[in-house]
Amino acid sequence: MDLSPASIQEAYTLITPHIHRTPLLTCSTLDTLASTPQSVADLANTPFAGLEPAHPRFRFFFKCENYQRIGAFKARGAFHALIRLLQGGEDVRTRGVITHSSGNHAQALALAAKTLDIPAYVVMPEISTPSKIAGTRAHGATVVFSGSTSEEREAVVRDLQAQTGAILVPPYDDANVICGQGTTGLEMQAQYEALVEQTPRLSVHPEQKVLDAVITPIGGGGLNAGVATYFSDKTTKVFGAEPSFEGADDCRRGLEGGVRVESVKTLTIADGLRTPVGILNWAVISDPSKVAGVYAVTEEQIKAAMRLVLERMKVVVEPSAVVGLAVCLFNEEFRRLVEKEGGDQGWDVGIVFSGGNTTVEAIGKLFT
Amino acid sequence: MDLSPASIQEAYTLITPHIHRTPLLTCSTLDTLASTPQSVADLANTPFAGLEPAHPRFRFFFKCENYQRIGAFKARGAFHALIRLLQGGEDVRTRGVITHSSGNHAQALALAAKTLDIPAYVVMPEISTPSKIAGTRAHGATVVFSGSTSEEREAVVRDLQAQTGAILVPPYDDANVICGQGTTGLEMQAQYEALVEQTPRLSVHPEQKVLDAVITPIGGGGLNAGVATYFSDKTTKVFGAEPSFEGADDCRRGLEGGVRVESVKTLTIADGLRTPVGILNWAVISDPSKVAGVYAVTEEQIKAAMRLVLERMKVVVEPSAVVGLAVCLFNEEFRRLVEKEGGDQGWDVGIVFSGGNTTVEAIGKLFT
Repeated sequence: MDLSPASIQEAYTLITPHIHRTPLLTCSTLDTLASTPQSVADLANTPFAGLEPAHPRFRFFFKCENYQRIGAFKARGAFHALIRLLQGGEDVRTRGVITHSSGNHAQALALAAKTLDIPAYVVMPEISTPSKIAGTRAHGATVVFSGSTSEEREAVVRDLQAQTGAILVPPYDDANVICGQGTTGLEMQAQYEALVEQTPRLSVHPEQKVLDAVITPIGGGGLNAGVATYFSDKTTKVFGAEPSFEGADDCRRGLEGGVRVESVKTLTIADGLRTPVGILNWAVISDPSKVAGVYAVTEEQIKAAMRLVLERMKVVVEPSAVVGLAVCLFNEEFRRLVEKEGGDQGWDVGIVFSGGNTTVEAIGKLFT
Repeated sequence: MDLSPASIQEAYTLITPHIHRTPLLTCSTLDTLASTPQSVADLANTPFAGLEPAHPRFRFFFKCENYQRIGAFKARGAFHALIRLLQGGEDVRTRGVITHSSGNHAQALALAAKTLDIPAYVVMPEISTPSKIAGTRAHGATVVFSGSTSEEREAVVRDLQAQTGAILVPPYDDANVICGQGTTGLEMQAQYEALVEQTPRLSVHPEQKVLDAVITPIGGGGLNAGVATYFSDKTTKVFGAEPSFEGADDCRRGLEGGVRVESVKTLTIADGLRTPVGILNWAVISDPSKVAGVYAVTEEQIKAAMRLVLERMKVVVEPSAVVGLAVCLFNEEFRRLVEKEGGDQGWDVGIVFSGGNTTVEAIGKLFT
């Protein structure tokens, strides 16, 4: 499986019957806000309704993967990886598949395995929340418990693989997973084309009808590498966004230092982005012809962006989902770049909302 | 202005340029949940993903007025009332309009007045939250403060009317407002028709392609009376939903006793539904050929429904918006009715989500 736009087109054909075509939403309030210089402190007192931007700088197109099956883009990669395993001729229906994520990837793998009639084993720490365990089991996976350290989890995975022959499906560092996640980019570009047929637009490339820029969160880097691969033969610039808290911006730091950062230990509120970038993912993201830059935002900026999406767009997202929007609103380096390159027209920016798996209690905890 | 389906069609033509055609959403998880007997306590431990209903009882179509302009259906009635005033030949552009709501109606009136170039005065209690004051001002209205009791507010309104000649636009007890809100029903029926062209359906009236039932919240009754008027020449049964807390189910109690309840004092979490039903609204709602029944739900049931909409649909709604869904999920009397009348096919039910104006802090307070 090579990482090319054609591979992503192939992946899309394979997974289309199983995934949702999630909506591409716009929000003029957020366009206006982003086109006006902002700090988090300013935002709290801004009466949005009357705002008129000095000149249009951003027009946003939100790809809502929070409305994807299992509530996150991870369903794309999981379905693609399993369909490829079935095509590969190995007896995956007997052997089964295994993973050790306790987050969105676990649920995605469980759903895809159940749909494709493949046994699935998910190794989860004993201390996982009951709702996550119940959710994974409800999709038909066998949940096996382990200790909390990665050594303990990996030992349980090895034991289970030895017993069952189950094939490991990694959460991000895998070409098939990357191509699956990249279909997010393909779909948003197609929806953008259809939308701008109907509406006047800012884009600096009117003849091509491509997005000027796309920004996605970076955790392990599956989504960003996949989307960057899809746009690699287009004029669209792809960017990544990370939390800066406790060094969670491992990818940005790696690019600065010229070497991939191999481990991260952070408790950022963007809990889907606590992992370091994978090896295959790094190869794509560190290629400046594919990814134009990675920017970081603070916890406070992530919360401000999440508040805007919930209160203004009335859309439920998890903290990890809004780091791209937070970069557009608050990262001065990125905003200067858009001002310079977007000129009088501004940029049409695709923002991927990666997921919406949160709870009302978690929202309450963040904002009280 | 008579209250007929034709009047609502006329209202729709007038307001269409100014309002959003809000989406009609479906959610198979909620259909499945509602088709399985539930209590609030059961719900907390239900692993939704694996559920298969014994037989389909409900298929829901959610009319998302939380995505309407100003975040609530109130924009419809406000635009209609003001356009009719302009047509009426009175010099409303000199005199202006006035209201004393501090909630969604105030913002709706302010937006409509600004759009149509009419001065607007909004009387608000001094103790109103700063964001509501800022929001109303941002739409260009003149905010005038009063004391908190209804006597104090009405005195300020009378003074202002004497000074300016401003015309009162009531929040619900007004034929033009009712017809404006009724366009919600017209739009959802049209969207339902388009949707069922594409998807197999449960409805017991396949030849007519009309919803089997529609349920809306009842506060002052503008939305319910308008929607019931629209469906009055169709087979669709229209229902109302109210909170039962501290007697907020004034309409249900009035129907039981045969007399409209004229005042209510409640602090239900469904803060848009704390008012008694208006006189014109009562005339429609108490007509059994127009409204088939009104049902009440507890605070706990409202919270459970709100949690499901936020966590499962990933849609932000205010507590008042989900009382109709709560009736479908938890009110045993209503559920028995659907079981009896829906038979093997079940019912296609349109549920109006009336608004989404809440904050992350308010969500936090409700669920912690």
